Amino acid sequence: MTQKTNVTAAFVMIGDEILSGRTEDKNLNFLAKNLTEMGINLREVRIVPDIENEIIFAVNEVRKKFDYVFTSGGIGPTHDDITSLAIAKAFEDELVQNIEATEILEKYYGKENLNEARLKMAFVPRKARLLDNPVSSAPGFRIENVFVMAGVPKIFQAMFAAASKELNGGKKIKSKEVKTTLTESILAKDLENLQKKYPQVTMGSYPFDGGTSLVFRSNDYQLLEESATGMIEILERIKSGSIISAS
Amino acid sequence: MTQKTNVTAAFVMIGDEILSGRTEDKNLNFLAKNLTEMGINLREVRIVPDIENEIIFAVNEVRKKFDYVFTSGGIGPTHDDITSLAIAKAFEDELVQNIEATEILEKYYGKENLNEARLKMAFVPRKARLLDNPVSSAPGFRIENVFVMAGVPKIFQAMFAAASKELNGGKKIKSKEVKTTLTESILAKDLENLQKKYPQVTMGSYPFDGGTSLVFRSNDYQLLEESATGMIEILERIKSGSIISAS
Repeated sequence: MTQKTNVTAAFVMIGDEILSGRTEDKNLNFLAKNLTEMGINLREVRIVPDIENEIIFAVNEVRKKFDYVFTSGGIGPTHDDITSLAIAKAFEDELVQNIEATEILEKYYGKENLNEARLKMAFVPRKARLLDNPVSSAPGFRIENVFVMAGVPKIFQAMFAAASKELNGGKKIKSKEVKTTLTESILAKDLENLQKKYPQVTMGSYPFDGGTSLVFRSNDYQLLEESATGMIEILERIKSGSIISAS
Repeated sequence: MTQKTNVTAAFVMIGDEILSGRTEDKNLNFLAKNLTEMGINLREVRIVPDIENEIIFAVNEVRKKFDYVFTSGGIGPTHDDITSLAIAKAFEDELVQNIEATEILEKYYGKENLNEARLKMAFVPRKARLLDNPVSSAPGFRIENVFVMAGVPKIFQAMFAAASKELNGGKKIKSKEVKTTLTESILAKDLENLQKKYPQVTMGSYPFDGGTSLVFRSNDYQLLEESATGMIEILERIKSGSIISAS
């Protein structure tokens, strides 16, 4: 199998509590870093409320556009956990009691403690395959290219570990960073010319207190190296000693 | 003027650096909290890359659905700052050199230091009105219901202060939180019944290590109070002493 060069992903967070500001998101940066590490390009993120139609709309838009979709939140035992049903509807599938999931929950809680609410977590779309949850047993699931995971960071991370075994990354995008004491408006013209010379390298400029971070990203490591070196030469030419770091 | 009861907003972050995991977002929680405080319901967030068509698509989708839209990122002086042009195109408007913005930049940098890159920040859509930036002068802008702001948190916050003078909030949504040592699957049935009794109150259940946080949100303060009190009674009935806090 040939390796796809540009593998893409989207992340849909289902979370009233993040939209209201009550909870700070802790999953995005984890997911972004891990996907980048695997050569998967996180291309879009959406955060939607716990409303069925909005979940369906968002998931259906992104699952057609990107290779992989990850969702977080809304797969617990309470009435506001509506993600599994919404995902089933997005795929024109139905929620069914999954035997394997039921056994996992029985083993974890004990058969006598598996009340109606807990049993709810055994219902997944008919076409789904389970994602292991070593933290609190109740599984996530995968349906086609969509991975449905919990919102609690510890569980999200554990489910991502399970999901990542099934992901095929592209050629990893590497990055180089050059930090300088110069402000970005001084560098803009040279940076733009450098970008034109190396269209295969994505160049970003991020100001910080005391200077600018110039970030070069590419899966062509030769061109990446060349372009970053080009930047260092430019900086030395504009003002000798203006480089804080290059890595 | 009668106050609208449900005022909504969306947030579009333009940021390759957030999608790649290199930078952690610091603006979402600030915006979410401040909007909630003003009685504005943040209903959707999207994070898109620094690609013109994707910015246009996202902004055009959300500006029709919600009362207000806020964007962050991509309004600086470098070649990768393409937000202003993308916003102009989304509104079928054109970028023009804004006289007021030019004067602000001249005053801040000095006329002799206003190079091409810096001057780029004076170009905004023809129909736009400026948003003051006391931190680093280069202004954000408003066009219809869309507020275009910088991504650097300190500047984002300053521009939001300017924007917020122009926002009309709805009746503020207040929240009550009841924390309990009980797990959510024990409470799920009672919580669901309580939700049915108080449909005007949004009830969320969030597990944490050692218990569950139950969050009630509504702009009907009487019903909010009643429903939270109802939850406290339920908890005492299930297990006396299981309440950690109620606020």
